[in-house]
Parts: sequence; C-alpha cells; structure tokens
Amino acid sequence: MSTPVRISVDWKGDHNFDAGREGRPSIRIDGDGATGPSPPDALICALAACVSVDVVDILAKRRTPVDSYRVEAVGERVETIPRRFSHISLKVFINGKGIERAQADRAIDLALNKYCSVKDSLDPNLPVEWTLVLNGE
Amino acid sequence: MSTPVRISVDWKGDHNFDAGREGRPSIRIDGDGATGPSPPDALICALAACVSVDVVDILAKRRTPVDSYRVEAVGERVETIPRRFSHISLKVFINGKGIERAQADRAIDLALNKYCSVKDSLDPNLPVEWTLVLNGE
Repeated sequence: MSTPVRISVDWKGDHNFDAGREGRPSIRIDGDGATGPSPPDALICALAACVSVDVVDILAKRRTPVDSYRVEAVGERVETIPRRFSHISLKVFINGKGIERAQADRAIDLALNKYCSVKDSLDPNLPVEWTLVLNGE
Repeated sequence: MSTPVRISVDWKGDHNFDAGREGRPSIRIDGDGATGPSPPDALICALAACVSVDVVDILAKRRTPVDSYRVEAVGERVETIPRRFSHISLKVFINGKGIERAQADRAIDLALNKYCSVKDSLDPNLPVEWTLVLNGE
C-alpha cells in the first residue's frame, strides 16, 4: 500500500488555519478569504495545480517545454447549503515554442482524466471542462 | 446564482505553482511537496480546513469557544493511477473550557456533513471519518 497523505491543520484565530505536512512549508487557508484562499478556493487550486503538474511534465518529456503556463479556473456552486460545486472550468494558457495544439490538447486531457488524483477524488457527477489558449490563440 | 469561485494558478518552474484569487495572498502548491503541499495534500488541507471553520464557529456561537484547535488528517489512496483517495480520517483536537463532548461531537458532525462544501464536492463513495480528542482525552 502506498504511503498515506498526512497533513495537519492548526487554528490561528478567527477563520485562519495553517495547513500542511509536518516539517514542510504550510499554506494559509482562511474561511474569510482575506489572508489566504478559503477552503473551497483551495479545493479548486488543488485541482488546477494537479492537472498542471502533469501538463508541464508531459510537454517537457515531448521536448517542447512550456515557456510560461497559467490556469484560470472558475468553480460554480449550487445555492443550497452545503453549496457544493456544480461545475468547474479550467482555461489553460500555454506559451512555448514548437508546442502544437493537438499535443497540448492531449496533454491536458491525459493530465485531467488519466493522472489527476484530485479530479478522480471529486464527485463523478461534477463536470470539469477545459479550454486551451496556446501562444495567445 | 452565487458568485463563482475564480482562482488562477501560475507556473513558477519545476513543479511549483502559486495559486489563489486575483489580488489576494496566494498559496504555493508543489508537485514534489518541497516548497508547499502537493496537490493531493492540498485537497486534504482544504477539506480539513473547511470542516474546521465551522467547528470553531459553532462552538463560539454556543459560548464555549475553543482555546486551541488542530486537525491531523490522513488520506489513503488506491495504488492504481490516478491514485484517488480511498479513505480520509480526521483526528480533531479541541481544547476549551466548558466544551462538552456531546457538543463537540455534534459540531464536527454538522460541520462535516451539513455545511462543508468541500466534503460535498468529493466522491460520495469516499468515506470521511473522524475522531475527537477533547481537552486531551
């Protein structure tokens, strides 16, 4: 069995929490969204970063590394408590020489639907869609 | 309709990404777990913080605020890629005068199962269990 993920979350007053692995840099999560992302924000951050680690890796392995890379993510939530996410969209901005659209599309699809453990831990009924902006187009 | 969550994730070299809302403090997520939590770590951080915001609030509203509060979370993952989480456990440490076990139990149950939008966005087949350590016991 693989090593489990072990993290801790420490209350720092108000709605502030410092979270992470023992002895490693922590992240600030703030229920009010002032000193750090709120918990739902952090969920979307985790998803977008999860996909991105593999997209950057896949393109590097194909000898067309990214020069710059960014994702803008939008998560829509239902009105009723607990206000779960109902739809997530990822707009992926990739810049790099020699990267072809078909390769970048394939990298994103693989990263999201084959490799991303965060995505695969979400409700299967929660759609996650994406679009690509490659070298500004 | 409620305001969507909008975050961005910017690549900072290697497996490093800075993530968060525009103009707000960002968090570092690192696929290697060195400069910040990895994406799966960040998912567990988001879940534990989500529950915690409400636990702290509920106990404060009952006029038995926490003196200190911490969660230790363990997420187990399947072996097969994409290595989704198969089980999550939260060990909740609460210290505070006048907090009764039944109240703390109820606060955690409400926070996790009624209010937590992160929990409600996860796969319904992914069990999230918890235990309470109240004033050291």
